Amino acid sequence: MLSPVLLLVTVLTVHSVNGACLHDDAPLSRRANPAVPIANFSYTGATGPFGWAGLSPANGACSTSKMQSPINLDNAISMSKSTLTVTIPDVSHAELENLGSTLEVVANGTTHFAGKAYTLAQFHFHTPSEHRIANEYFPLEGHFVHQASDGQRLVLGVLFELTTDGTTTALLTALSHHISAVATPGKSTQTSALHFRQIAAHVQAGPLYQYTGSLTTPPCTAGVIWLVAQKPLPVNVKTFLGFKKIMKFNARYTQNTLGQQNLIQLAASQLTHAQ
Amino acid sequence: MLSPVLLLVTVLTVHSVNGACLHDDAPLSRRANPAVPIANFSYTGATGPFGWAGLSPANGACSTSKMQSPINLDNAISMSKSTLTVTIPDVSHAELENLGSTLEVVANGTTHFAGKAYTLAQFHFHTPSEHRIANEYFPLEGHFVHQASDGQRLVLGVLFELTTDGTTTALLTALSHHISAVATPGKSTQTSALHFRQIAAHVQAGPLYQYTGSLTTPPCTAGVIWLVAQKPLPVNVKTFLGFKKIMKFNARYTQNTLGQQNLIQLAASQLTHAQ
Repeated sequence: MLSPVLLLVTVLTVHSVNGACLHDDAPLSRRANPAVPIANFSYTGATGPFGWAGLSPANGACSTSKMQSPINLDNAISMSKSTLTVTIPDVSHAELENLGSTLEVVANGTTHFAGKAYTLAQFHFHTPSEHRIANEYFPLEGHFVHQASDGQRLVLGVLFELTTDGTTTALLTALSHHISAVATPGKSTQTSALHFRQIAAHVQAGPLYQYTGSLTTPPCTAGVIWLVAQKPLPVNVKTFLGFKKIMKFNARYTQNTLGQQNLIQLAASQLTHAQ
Repeated sequence: MLSPVLLLVTVLTVHSVNGACLHDDAPLSRRANPAVPIANFSYTGATGPFGWAGLSPANGACSTSKMQSPINLDNAISMSKSTLTVTIPDVSHAELENLGSTLEVVANGTTHFAGKAYTLAQFHFHTPSEHRIANEYFPLEGHFVHQASDGQRLVLGVLFELTTDGTTTALLTALSHHISAVATPGKSTQTSALHFRQIAAHVQAGPLYQYTGSLTTPPCTAGVIWLVAQKPLPVNVKTFLGFKKIMKFNARYTQNTLGQQNLIQLAASQLTHAQ
């Protein structure tokens, strides 16, 4: 048996390897340790997406997998026809964290998709969007990260578009009241009440692009089920700028067509020809 | 001597190699041929930035040069201390073109920088911004592309930030009235009057980041002087969405620290270690 102290260390180690992607054990560790672990990867230069595979031997899929996310969602990507129910209970408060790589909220909920139950672990944001639709990007994207009891991962992706009339999404407004408390990496805070009905209804209403890709952050693990809502939800300028001011830029470049050579291998092969 | 017909063909070929970057001969060719040449490169997949070097032997610098643009503008980049005067005469109309890779306006003007005269050839836009400031991106960036008589290239970069009160930049508003006419690649149209005083005054007022980088599109030629205004100009949501709807996504990823290994070579070397 591990002592409680050793168990905590083990949980933190797993969390560090998983980065911003999925850490179902994290809520426990976070309560015991208010300091949030900061991601060791970035979005520019040698620790950016070109260098992710060099940061750890565990990150090899980032440079070699042929099923990587995000992607450009075009006509080649089919729309989901499977049954989906998204249940995210409203909460009186939640833990909001700045992981350096993203702003993340520890969450609970269950998504039933194609007859299987997936447990929500957290949701987080990217700016600009990671996925594009017919080549067009969006200013903000939310990822609701789930895992089934057999380990299968599923992410619900929600795009946000700017509005000219100030309309915005209630969940973003609720979070925006607290983000100044997590302006620097490693900070965490407690939010006020969060309501998820708007998000859940939007995803359930569809249509949803469906494909099997990967985590968009190291270790870029493949085999993740992606369901991305085709229609964006609204975000107003003030809310968007609040998120951008803290996240700055945290979108991985779009990957190659699913099943085609990883773009880093493609670029490397052209380098060899050139020399 | 070349016949006029042969000369036209020659000019068009040069234009095609230069893509959206610099084509000082283009106004002549465009008048003779209303169809605008469409760029052969893109911003996703195998023809995106990872594949640019593979599109033509002329594009080798995209994958191997250590002085590539865009970059993250941080404290390591110094501010310009040289004298600068930007003169862009107002025009009653101008040619607005959709090159597939960008929306571009053929322009005239002269920038004097550090005692040398540079002739403005065109300006064009990127969304999201290509440069970042202290890691943060902006929704739109304009590039005013110049060349001196000795061939030296200089680009004035202007970032645009979204406003909550609807404030915007007059030049963007003037162009936004015409962009629906160039919604598809290869289209061109004549604008109404364009005024440049606001842009020129903003760049002249500074402060300006100064560094020597490259064209941000193939052939990624190095040795380009960049002057990027530290403060953004305003853009409102309506105008921004109009540009984004057409350009969709046309920003190259930020490059490695100046003088450091090209990020594609870095990624390739880590791939070798991993295999």
